[in-house]
Amino acid sequence: MRQSKLFTKTSKENPSGEVSLNAQLLIKAGFVNKEMAGVYAYLPLGLRVIEKIKSIIREEMNAIGGQEIIMSALQPKEVWESTGRWDDKVVDVWFKSKLKNETEVGFGWSHEEPITEMMKKFLSSYKDFPVSTYQFQTKLRNELRAKSGIMRGREFVMKDLYNYDIDEKRHLKFYDSVKDAYMNVFKRVGLGDITYMTFATGGAFTKYSHEFQTITEAGEDIIYVNKEKGVAVNEEVMDESILKELGVKKEELTKVKSAEVGNIFNFGTAKCDDMRLTVTDKEGKQIPVYLGSYGIGVTRLMGVLAEHFADDRGMIWPKSVAPFQVHLISLGDEGKTEAEKIYNTLVEKGVEVLWDDRDIQAGAKFADSDLIGIPKRIVVSKKTLEKNSVEVKMRNSDEAELVEIEKI
Amino acid sequence: MRQSKLFTKTSKENPSGEVSLNAQLLIKAGFVNKEMAGVYAYLPLGLRVIEKIKSIIREEMNAIGGQEIIMSALQPKEVWESTGRWDDKVVDVWFKSKLKNETEVGFGWSHEEPITEMMKKFLSSYKDFPVSTYQFQTKLRNELRAKSGIMRGREFVMKDLYNYDIDEKRHLKFYDSVKDAYMNVFKRVGLGDITYMTFATGGAFTKYSHEFQTITEAGEDIIYVNKEKGVAVNEEVMDESILKELGVKKEELTKVKSAEVGNIFNFGTAKCDDMRLTVTDKEGKQIPVYLGSYGIGVTRLMGVLAEHFADDRGMIWPKSVAPFQVHLISLGDEGKTEAEKIYNTLVEKGVEVLWDDRDIQAGAKFADSDLIGIPKRIVVSKKTLEKNSVEVKMRNSDEAELVEIEKI
Repeated sequence: MRQSKLFTKTSKENPSGEVSLNAQLLIKAGFVNKEMAGVYAYLPLGLRVIEKIKSIIREEMNAIGGQEIIMSALQPKEVWESTGRWDDKVVDVWFKSKLKNETEVGFGWSHEEPITEMMKKFLSSYKDFPVSTYQFQTKLRNELRAKSGIMRGREFVMKDLYNYDIDEKRHLKFYDSVKDAYMNVFKRVGLGDITYMTFATGGAFTKYSHEFQTITEAGEDIIYVNKEKGVAVNEEVMDESILKELGVKKEELTKVKSAEVGNIFNFGTAKCDDMRLTVTDKEGKQIPVYLGSYGIGVTRLMGVLAEHFADDRGMIWPKSVAPFQVHLISLGDEGKTEAEKIYNTLVEKGVEVLWDDRDIQAGAKFADSDLIGIPKRIVVSKKTLEKNSVEVKMRNSDEAELVEIEKI
Repeated sequence: MRQSKLFTKTSKENPSGEVSLNAQLLIKAGFVNKEMAGVYAYLPLGLRVIEKIKSIIREEMNAIGGQEIIMSALQPKEVWESTGRWDDKVVDVWFKSKLKNETEVGFGWSHEEPITEMMKKFLSSYKDFPVSTYQFQTKLRNELRAKSGIMRGREFVMKDLYNYDIDEKRHLKFYDSVKDAYMNVFKRVGLGDITYMTFATGGAFTKYSHEFQTITEAGEDIIYVNKEKGVAVNEEVMDESILKELGVKKEELTKVKSAEVGNIFNFGTAKCDDMRLTVTDKEGKQIPVYLGSYGIGVTRLMGVLAEHFADDRGMIWPKSVAPFQVHLISLGDEGKTEAEKIYNTLVEKGVEVLWDDRDIQAGAKFADSDLIGIPKRIVVSKKTLEKNSVEVKMRNSDEAELVEIEKI
């Protein structure tokens, strides 16, 4: 894409009233726009990052047999009353409104209930299992405060996966396969080193649940980690009993701030029991259904990436989620003519290039490039062309090298 | 995909309380699930169709220079008050709710105001134009009635494109390029023959607006068309003056029911004036900004397709939007073994195949195949294998032919 056509502009000043680093950076670089507290629009550069993250997650979910669907934001009251979760005292993040005929409706902050309600139509026999389905859904949550930028929004994108089964062993095996798939996702987006599967509060059914926590100063959680042993415990369940279970001593663990980028949760048969989803076994007897629920905060993950992969000049996107792979910068008229040829060649070869073809000062171009954070910068100028070369520099390195034009 | 893994099941009975043909068909075939009146979930087969339609639209929007973004569902009151459209008496489809601190918020039924508000940050000089940006957004509208299935939902997907310019001529030229792009979309999804650019009610700024109307009994509009001359007029503006302008006589026109699948609307400078978006010209003087707004109802389009491409056995998807290109049906154990080879070969070659590998009766498989409506059906059975062949039949034809296995 030619940068002269990109409608967003970078900004040097921190947006007023925005306290979180991720939102500050993303707004200054033109990736997102703040619509109201906790609500952001995703602009061309930002949407490209979101789509990259979604593609990685989609591949991992499809690989474990997930079938993609999309549920609705609008939610009927009845479905949520069956589990007691319509009540604002039980769930305090509902946005609710009314139809013209005064019927109350809610806006989806989660989707276990509607998906389970729907499954009652499709699941009736032991033969119908296992089933796993997922969606990328825009969740709406009436959060009291929203000060963490895109890491905790009133409107945000979540990938949620649901697994239904009648065989507990197979159900637990699937649970383990999701653990692996999730770690693959976090590795692929570049956060593998600092993301831990963390023991956290369970529910009625299990002693612990598993969260995926990424170490970041911007996080809202506290976890205790041991990097060598690869174990982590959420502060909320930190006691002698879990230490014993994991075989670690408290002094071996380091206390850090972290953000929950994913969680996996085994409902056992409780949710389906509440919602009266049972099916027949071989003998025609009604048997219970297990449900596992697995989430990744897609926009939160992008926020964590912006927090983590940044320096004082701007963002430094990992290749796998960068909006473009190459930032081509042409200086002067000679640079522009040659850059156009390079641009066309790279685009033809399927390389994602943002070409800064604007008629502005070199310094402003370099500053924008550092702020936007595309992994590879290629500069074409009169000076580089005198050596029949271009200057190549990685965003995460200070060393630039001249490379012959033919070789790029 | 193996049909035995697909969690949706077809149903023979019409869903209760569903009066529209498109929703009846799509629910019976397992493409959508009704969450509440006017609100549908899109299941694996349905989501594939939606994504196909979106891809076609995306290609056409990118080709005319549109930059994709995604705005928010949550809307602050102030932005809409500036044009008087927060008022429920002016806009009667708002869903509204409140933050914890009692601040009112709305849910986006349209996005001209928030996008224009955002553009105030990016557009300041005559040099910044033209700009065109689009999104695929889930719109929420508190419709009084919702009886047209996915053709008029309380929650639906719309592609909306916005073009900002300061040069009126160039603005009108872009308007014409959208007309062409829209007709390309409707042709590519298979509705070119029965979709007309239709003269309809304008606004404060233009005498007429242009709608894209597809002829269908399920439509809520009445238009007058002349196929040969390729002209169409919405009943609401049908008078002597428009007949004269178009050079047709009333008796040359046929009255038909139709559905508005797209509309293009020139706001002139009115919207940007209301919202105080002006920019500086070469001399530093403030000048007005033109806005064009261009919509395609993505889910409505899918509804029209389901209405149009159907017979009494089910749907008949055009290739361009079909969830799969090939429905491979294996009968008996011999059929299954050979079908698996064919399935793997086709998938390797990038063909989208749904393989009915279930252990059920042939008749049930054929009935499901007709209901789901994948364009090409390939049957592998003991009988066809005796001739080293498979039976190939198009969904829109009654003739089947034997084709040697090597040739498919």
